[in-house]
Amino acid sequence: MSVTQARTMPGVLELLPLDQVAFQGMLDAIRRNFERFGFVPIETPVMEFASILLTKEGGETERQVYFVQSTGAIEQGEKPELALRFDLTVPLARYVAEHEHDLTFPFRRYQIQRVYRGERAQRGRFREFYQCDIDVIGKDQLSVRYDAELPAVIHSVFRDLGIGAFTIQINNRKLMRGYLRALGIEDAAQQALVLREVDKLDKRGAKYVRETLTGATFALAPDVADRLLAFVETRSTSLADAIAKLDALGGANAELDQGRVELKEVLTLVAAFGVPESHFALNLSIARGLDYYTGTVYETTLNDHPEIGSICSGGRYENLASHYTKSKLPGVGISIGATRLYWQLREAGLFAGGRSTVQALVAQMDEAELPRYLALANELREAGINTEVVMEHGKLARQFKYADRAGIRFVLVLGPDEIAKGVIAVKDLREATQHEIPRADLVERLRAALH
Amino acid sequence: MSVTQARTMPGVLELLPLDQVAFQGMLDAIRRNFERFGFVPIETPVMEFASILLTKEGGETERQVYFVQSTGAIEQGEKPELALRFDLTVPLARYVAEHEHDLTFPFRRYQIQRVYRGERAQRGRFREFYQCDIDVIGKDQLSVRYDAELPAVIHSVFRDLGIGAFTIQINNRKLMRGYLRALGIEDAAQQALVLREVDKLDKRGAKYVRETLTGATFALAPDVADRLLAFVETRSTSLADAIAKLDALGGANAELDQGRVELKEVLTLVAAFGVPESHFALNLSIARGLDYYTGTVYETTLNDHPEIGSICSGGRYENLASHYTKSKLPGVGISIGATRLYWQLREAGLFAGGRSTVQALVAQMDEAELPRYLALANELREAGINTEVVMEHGKLARQFKYADRAGIRFVLVLGPDEIAKGVIAVKDLREATQHEIPRADLVERLRAALH
Repeated sequence: MSVTQARTMPGVLELLPLDQVAFQGMLDAIRRNFERFGFVPIETPVMEFASILLTKEGGETERQVYFVQSTGAIEQGEKPELALRFDLTVPLARYVAEHEHDLTFPFRRYQIQRVYRGERAQRGRFREFYQCDIDVIGKDQLSVRYDAELPAVIHSVFRDLGIGAFTIQINNRKLMRGYLRALGIEDAAQQALVLREVDKLDKRGAKYVRETLTGATFALAPDVADRLLAFVETRSTSLADAIAKLDALGGANAELDQGRVELKEVLTLVAAFGVPESHFALNLSIARGLDYYTGTVYETTLNDHPEIGSICSGGRYENLASHYTKSKLPGVGISIGATRLYWQLREAGLFAGGRSTVQALVAQMDEAELPRYLALANELREAGINTEVVMEHGKLARQFKYADRAGIRFVLVLGPDEIAKGVIAVKDLREATQHEIPRADLVERLRAALH
Repeated sequence: MSVTQARTMPGVLELLPLDQVAFQGMLDAIRRNFERFGFVPIETPVMEFASILLTKEGGETERQVYFVQSTGAIEQGEKPELALRFDLTVPLARYVAEHEHDLTFPFRRYQIQRVYRGERAQRGRFREFYQCDIDVIGKDQLSVRYDAELPAVIHSVFRDLGIGAFTIQINNRKLMRGYLRALGIEDAAQQALVLREVDKLDKRGAKYVRETLTGATFALAPDVADRLLAFVETRSTSLADAIAKLDALGGANAELDQGRVELKEVLTLVAAFGVPESHFALNLSIARGLDYYTGTVYETTLNDHPEIGSICSGGRYENLASHYTKSKLPGVGISIGATRLYWQLREAGLFAGGRSTVQALVAQMDEAELPRYLALANELREAGINTEVVMEHGKLARQFKYADRAGIRFVLVLGPDEIAKGVIAVKDLREATQHEIPRADLVERLRAALH
């Protein structure tokens, strides 16, 4: 029979089992923290009606959409009616609008699913990737206090992941817009363009941005550009410093003032949520590309790996689902792009990996003793220890080699000698030790070592 | 702005949060048991190259495939190159062939992902549904002993799910084919057709099957049809009974003999794995529709709900990935169709539901005490209790109503009186009780109640 070459499509991250275990551990930690903070799960179908997914102005987004058709629909020459979700925000909006009367508000949902974008394939860009989102959605209104809860969740997640020091950068779009207006940049579209340039500060540097802003397109006066750059370069070193820096901005207009009031309340509450002052900061350059956000905005960066960029971003929006319902649904949310994050952490050597979910392997010394091995494995499993039994007879050395390659930590050997002495020979492949453990103590000893 | 009606495509099961919690609990229990038995996770992309997915004879399967195309590809009038997976077996075959040299064999993988079929929409039929699969794949060979491990996993999963008494039905295709040959039905294609009729026994009854087999198409002699029906009606009541019934079949030919030897070893080992004899049985009618299986085959039925049909099926196959590699990869696997199972269990009233992942709600009695509430919530979260804090001020009665609708069990009230007395007023909405608990005892009392 001829053989078809087995290969995945480009632009996906398919993992070997031990890497999948590490990645799954990351998703589990994220989920655990989302649940700890009282968010509830939803899942939506991978496909939505294209008419629903693409209600927003198409443009670039539309070009990146994957359309879906059944064989029958293609044969009948129909236009594709379905498409794969490209984020979790549009499906959330559709979900909340569809189930509005069955939900309790504030609706606090988490959602951990894959999304799809027909991007040009390149290193570190994925066409299929996990997003891990939480949002709090209010009906008619939602207190700005919720904006302080999300940094607490972010802190809890990344503390658990143990990937080094990080800082949650916080800003407010109202403050930004108010400040731009005070500088004489009144037009909303013009403000958006200026913010887009300011967003390039980290990548292109102050000189480049200053030249662009004073150049032909924007034609800002040099002192205006300087004040704007000084504004966006504002960073706080503590909560008190953040409050002082906000107060020093002066009272230019109502929008700036409202942004400042919100920021002060949010930053103060973030501390009350128990987030250490070392882990969050005011950063007046954070704009977020999307016009979507209207108040608080967040980014999160690894202190020792700024090149990775933001690992968790989000913000406050006025109205989630105006395309699908007349109800006003303000909300605040964050998103972790888990596939890219995992890939980047692995590239940066920040992920250990190499550990299996299988914790113990019962070796097969003597075929006739298989029932004894199975009983031992049962006992371990009942005690919560993930256990595999070698079912096929073979050399012990090969069984050890298998455990080593498979990332299994403990190999349990039970031959005639051990049976006679009432012990188990336990080899710890991670610590490279071997001990004889009395049969009766085995479960407790392994549990202690594993937890 | 005009409003687009928010709706999901037909044929998907989108759940409200509390149902999602129940469903997620089911998936978690399945995963936990898969890991307990030493299976390791993999995930594959939702899309595969159509040329890989559709290597098998197309027919009905091909008609049910969803094809995927990016906007660019559609504009260029290309034929769809990608398609959504319709099961987890073909992606597993592709995965093992692609990563063969990086895997350890026997390769024991679990995979819990959604699959897609463009079925005609009807009640209880889904176009998107979860499959939860485990397979053990050998290189060149795989001991029949592994066939005994999978019923042990099935037993462990469904015991944990607590959905009532169930029976794992076990048969062997070699035994069946050998018996058919002994009856003079030698041709493999003819055997497959006869097996397909026999598979209708549960649905259509013995009389219908007997008439078909002795009718024009098959033209079996009446006594041959009777012997065949007696054979497939064989059920065991215990391990000893199963062995006796197998021995009573006589030694007609080598294939029947090999099937019998395998079945006896598998059944004996299933008992050694600790599966109670009440939970598995020899059932010589189990054929499984697919020609795919070559040895042991399984189905699992709920004793009190035969109408639900098999809730977990699978079997042994000769070669997993002959389309993609020249290596011989025999395996044995099972699959749980979790979406359909959940839906059926819910329809049959076997699923409680109504419990949130959120375990405690800290009410907001006094706005000024918010930092105290946040500190309390932090303490609970650190102790592993999923806790939400009411951030928006409002009437206490409304906060209780919210907790009740949201399925949250405990509401914690901390007003001036409680603060003065050093207690928390704890309302248990499930037990409909209210207690004052000393602040210092709170964590332990809640933990005890929740576990």
